[in-house]
Amino acid sequence: MFKITFKLSGGEDRTVLAAPAQNLLDVARSAGVSIDAPCGGVGNCGKCRVKLVQGELECEKSRHIADEEYAEGWRLACICKVIGDAVIEVPAEATAYQDSLSSDFTARERDFSGLVETQKKLSEAGIGFPKAFKTVRIELKEPTLDDTMPDNERLSRYLYDKYKADYVGIPFYVLKKLPEVLRENNFRIKCLIEFTRGRLTVYEVLPIDAEGFPCGVAIDIGTTSVSAVLVDLEHGKILSGVSAANQQIRYGADVIHRIVESTRPGGREALQKAVVEETINPIIRHICKEANVPVSAICRLSVASNTTMNHLFAGVYADPIRMEPYVPAFFETRPIPAVMVGVEANNNARIIITPNIGSYVGGDITAGVLATAMWNSPEMTLFVDLGTNGELVLGNSDFMMSCACSAGPAFEGGDIICGMRAANGAIDEVKIDSETMEPTLSVIGEQGQKPLGICGSGLIDVVSELYSCGIINSRGQFIREGERVRRDSEGRGRYILVDKENSASGRDIFLTEVDIDNFIRAKGAIFSAIRTMLSSLSMDVDIIERVIVAGGIGSGINMENAVKIGMLPNIPIEKYGYIGNSSLAGSFMSLVSREAYDQTLEIARNMTYLELSVIPGYMEEFVAACFIPHTDETLFT
Amino acid sequence: MFKITFKLSGGEDRTVLAAPAQNLLDVARSAGVSIDAPCGGVGNCGKCRVKLVQGELECEKSRHIADEEYAEGWRLACICKVIGDAVIEVPAEATAYQDSLSSDFTARERDFSGLVETQKKLSEAGIGFPKAFKTVRIELKEPTLDDTMPDNERLSRYLYDKYKADYVGIPFYVLKKLPEVLRENNFRIKCLIEFTRGRLTVYEVLPIDAEGFPCGVAIDIGTTSVSAVLVDLEHGKILSGVSAANQQIRYGADVIHRIVESTRPGGREALQKAVVEETINPIIRHICKEANVPVSAICRLSVASNTTMNHLFAGVYADPIRMEPYVPAFFETRPIPAVMVGVEANNNARIIITPNIGSYVGGDITAGVLATAMWNSPEMTLFVDLGTNGELVLGNSDFMMSCACSAGPAFEGGDIICGMRAANGAIDEVKIDSETMEPTLSVIGEQGQKPLGICGSGLIDVVSELYSCGIINSRGQFIREGERVRRDSEGRGRYILVDKENSASGRDIFLTEVDIDNFIRAKGAIFSAIRTMLSSLSMDVDIIERVIVAGGIGSGINMENAVKIGMLPNIPIEKYGYIGNSSLAGSFMSLVSREAYDQTLEIARNMTYLELSVIPGYMEEFVAACFIPHTDETLFT
Repeated sequence: MFKITFKLSGGEDRTVLAAPAQNLLDVARSAGVSIDAPCGGVGNCGKCRVKLVQGELECEKSRHIADEEYAEGWRLACICKVIGDAVIEVPAEATAYQDSLSSDFTARERDFSGLVETQKKLSEAGIGFPKAFKTVRIELKEPTLDDTMPDNERLSRYLYDKYKADYVGIPFYVLKKLPEVLRENNFRIKCLIEFTRGRLTVYEVLPIDAEGFPCGVAIDIGTTSVSAVLVDLEHGKILSGVSAANQQIRYGADVIHRIVESTRPGGREALQKAVVEETINPIIRHICKEANVPVSAICRLSVASNTTMNHLFAGVYADPIRMEPYVPAFFETRPIPAVMVGVEANNNARIIITPNIGSYVGGDITAGVLATAMWNSPEMTLFVDLGTNGELVLGNSDFMMSCACSAGPAFEGGDIICGMRAANGAIDEVKIDSETMEPTLSVIGEQGQKPLGICGSGLIDVVSELYSCGIINSRGQFIREGERVRRDSEGRGRYILVDKENSASGRDIFLTEVDIDNFIRAKGAIFSAIRTMLSSLSMDVDIIERVIVAGGIGSGINMENAVKIGMLPNIPIEKYGYIGNSSLAGSFMSLVSREAYDQTLEIARNMTYLELSVIPGYMEEFVAACFIPHTDETLFT
Repeated sequence: MFKITFKLSGGEDRTVLAAPAQNLLDVARSAGVSIDAPCGGVGNCGKCRVKLVQGELECEKSRHIADEEYAEGWRLACICKVIGDAVIEVPAEATAYQDSLSSDFTARERDFSGLVETQKKLSEAGIGFPKAFKTVRIELKEPTLDDTMPDNERLSRYLYDKYKADYVGIPFYVLKKLPEVLRENNFRIKCLIEFTRGRLTVYEVLPIDAEGFPCGVAIDIGTTSVSAVLVDLEHGKILSGVSAANQQIRYGADVIHRIVESTRPGGREALQKAVVEETINPIIRHICKEANVPVSAICRLSVASNTTMNHLFAGVYADPIRMEPYVPAFFETRPIPAVMVGVEANNNARIIITPNIGSYVGGDITAGVLATAMWNSPEMTLFVDLGTNGELVLGNSDFMMSCACSAGPAFEGGDIICGMRAANGAIDEVKIDSETMEPTLSVIGEQGQKPLGICGSGLIDVVSELYSCGIINSRGQFIREGERVRRDSEGRGRYILVDKENSASGRDIFLTEVDIDNFIRAKGAIFSAIRTMLSSLSMDVDIIERVIVAGGIGSGINMENAVKIGMLPNIPIEKYGYIGNSSLAGSFMSLVSREAYDQTLEIARNMTYLELSVIPGYMEEFVAACFIPHTDETLFT
């Protein structure tokens, strides 16, 4: 056993024993030391840089570590093996990616206009807000020696009579407290109830004058980040909302790494804990506090997420999702009691999960399609969700087809050294002067916000501008020199967007050839998927009447640039629209409207799923699309 | 603070700090020292005798401690207050009552003939065994790239098709393990299912060749003891069974003391823990081990118990039961998931609770009435359940009326110094020679079993014989002298049934005047309740065509003696029958047959409940019945 000491940036030291040949990233995790590894610890992302200050490590070379850096002791933790005692310095940047994700947790989202708009749109499509949840004030007759009806029967009978219900359910947790609440309030109480389709359920009993109304939480569990809104279910009003990093991120950036981690001993519990206890429960506490609502007022939750995320959220064995023939445990599942997954809410609350369509097209897409209302329109619509992966749906009220493509997390800032989500400090729009090569930036946040990194919409702009200005070629290689272009010892270029004096982190913000390469593969995956789907239907691109782009890429997305670099098809720009987080919008609708949830079941059941990898010619399409804009330039003229 | 040391009979010492004036029994409990207090610590039962060997205690005098014993240091712990440091000797007898209750835990019950007979009887009454639970072996088609239906949908669809079910439920806990079980067994599995009224539920998925079948547990939660049987639900066969002390006994012998204890801070949790974790879970583990069945095979449980017991079992606030107007939280409750009350079973198991009739006539009586089949017979039947309390039901298929009387625990051996339940070592039949006053005893157990105490049927015999032989008068006072009759310093007599040389405990087995007085009040309560119920219906005792006696009093009950002492009415002896634990029998039937459970709902809903305490003349009836046999001797001639 060797002694490994981690010197943290805060000044703290942590020492643990490690076995010979143990992976350094694993050792750090076992010591409770947080180090970014969005690529899952396979040496790809270069975000787990640490510095060896004493002792030795066995370590492969990495394109992410320059020679002089290697000499200084810099290593990627994920590719180091322990071979003796060592002291490791962990710089603050080693958690920068996680931190950038967490940073907007405290900044509440105030703009719910997208959700409200969705609600209007679906209302036109016939999906109403049924007002199933209600607050009822009840004055029961107090029992006497001549009227000794038990509490349970007394309340049930009142509700049966008042609502002419077919069924009245007083769940066990309510029954347990009912006698005390009744007697402390002289049988004058307030109930939070749901009454729908003849069935009445009592979620909570309170003193008659108590504050409180039935609430719900709509959640979008993304691979990278989790968003949620708290909703007053009685009036359909959104009260508060927030986004935060999915704490599973430390187990890898993509679903495959997460599944692999979940199959280790104790892994399923660890992954569930990361998303439930470390992500969703803090979010719930936060949005409840914001709205001054007790957590026990949450009577229902709705989750929209990709197939892997909802399996890991529920603690269901997910390994078959990644192994041929790629079969998940469920598409549909009945509502799950919140207590069974450990989500903080009313004891009687259940979680509805929007249904999955395939192993790689999940409930987030079903929810997104719901939010677009494309299922109710004759217009041929292409729905493009740019999350940690890319998913596409093509269709209208007659038919719908979906597919997933391995775009990777570039659009959310993963796989990009200075990448980040569209949050405060993100560079979301970029122009580059073709003469001077100087950039003009737009940064998300208040006036004077210093830039922290680049989000998806910013990346599209930079790559498009670098190409237009002749700074990079169609393969993404730097072909011009200048102040803003720097090269490493092996001649690979990078473009400096912001120098360290002007950035919020005190480090340069730049884009390397490796970043650009990752980005080109991401956009190529999207474009080739669109082409393949169309050709599998023997359709031409002109059939598309509307394109709806969704995801955390940023509302600043410049569709013209996205077309110019060969990411989206070359159709009239007015056909394009951005919808934001459509998964959250669909989750919200499923929460407030039973009809909306039923519609997600219809959408998922009737959706055709196209497995791209088995389509002949798909790989060729992909390879052809991994150029700016494409090997076939006629597609963009 | 004072230092109190308990010297246990095993040789161990336990020392704790106690506050001035703290009750010694409470101090003992806080030190984890177990001392009997079936009367609830009010000085009535005399079972908490301890010996002060050093220091001081403030202590009232007690009729249970003779003067010379007091001089030796003997005290009743429940009436002692701490006034300084003290050393207390706790003799083995201080837990004899608890021990006598626990002793038959290891002796499994092998005689299930009563339950089997009940099953036959109810089958004649039209209540069948529907075979709702089944083991099904299933070979699913393995998924391929052309058939990627998820596991949940794959299994559901198979079951929908095979059973033409209206609904197939794969509960969350099954879904969680389904993917692994399917793949480890090449999609060849065994399911434990319930299919009833078109609804199919999967309780467990196992490898196709695994042992195991769906099981159930029927439980009778008595105030004093808990009995349970494990049942093969597929074939309706009883596999094992056991009785054990209800560990709530340390909080008091009767329901009132238990309720009071449950209202203390943390009391509800403590009382629930005592019956669930310390009583029922060990019972379940025991009967499962006996039958070589995993606990996870238990798909359903059924509980029959008095109203207080089922409230405390479920952790429901029970205080209103003891406070005017005596209103419980529920009569009926929907099945409760076993996980919610902490009962060990399959994760999907639910517990059905037979419905209550009133605050003091509970689900145990509903179950008992079910077992008698009196609801299906024109014969006017009197059902007498002698538990820790007495409950009566009078009626037939046309009407039924019930009432409860405060008989106390004498019939189960409580309130009687040498009393015990009808278990091994219990004296269950007694004859006394009127000349010599020598007793002839029958003892439960194998040949040569030494006597330990007296059970209910033995008590009836002793009192009847003592009276017949002119040893006691009609008030229960000793009026003859002799070898077998001893008197204390105040002249109160006791009859020695077994001297210490011949008893299993090494202590005399005797009956005191106080015991007899307690017993007379118990039998008086039963008799006066019968009289009051009859007169409230303007009926005469002759209308009774059948009397069914139930309870832990012992199968040796001599009905003639019970009539002779004025406990049961003077009607032809052939009309009497003993049914044993009818509550367990009814619980068993409710477990195996949905029709039986539905019948308990009918029984409870249609039962009239008579509150004796509000009937004019009841107290006079009771006082008149507190003689042997009665102040009105014409009733017994």
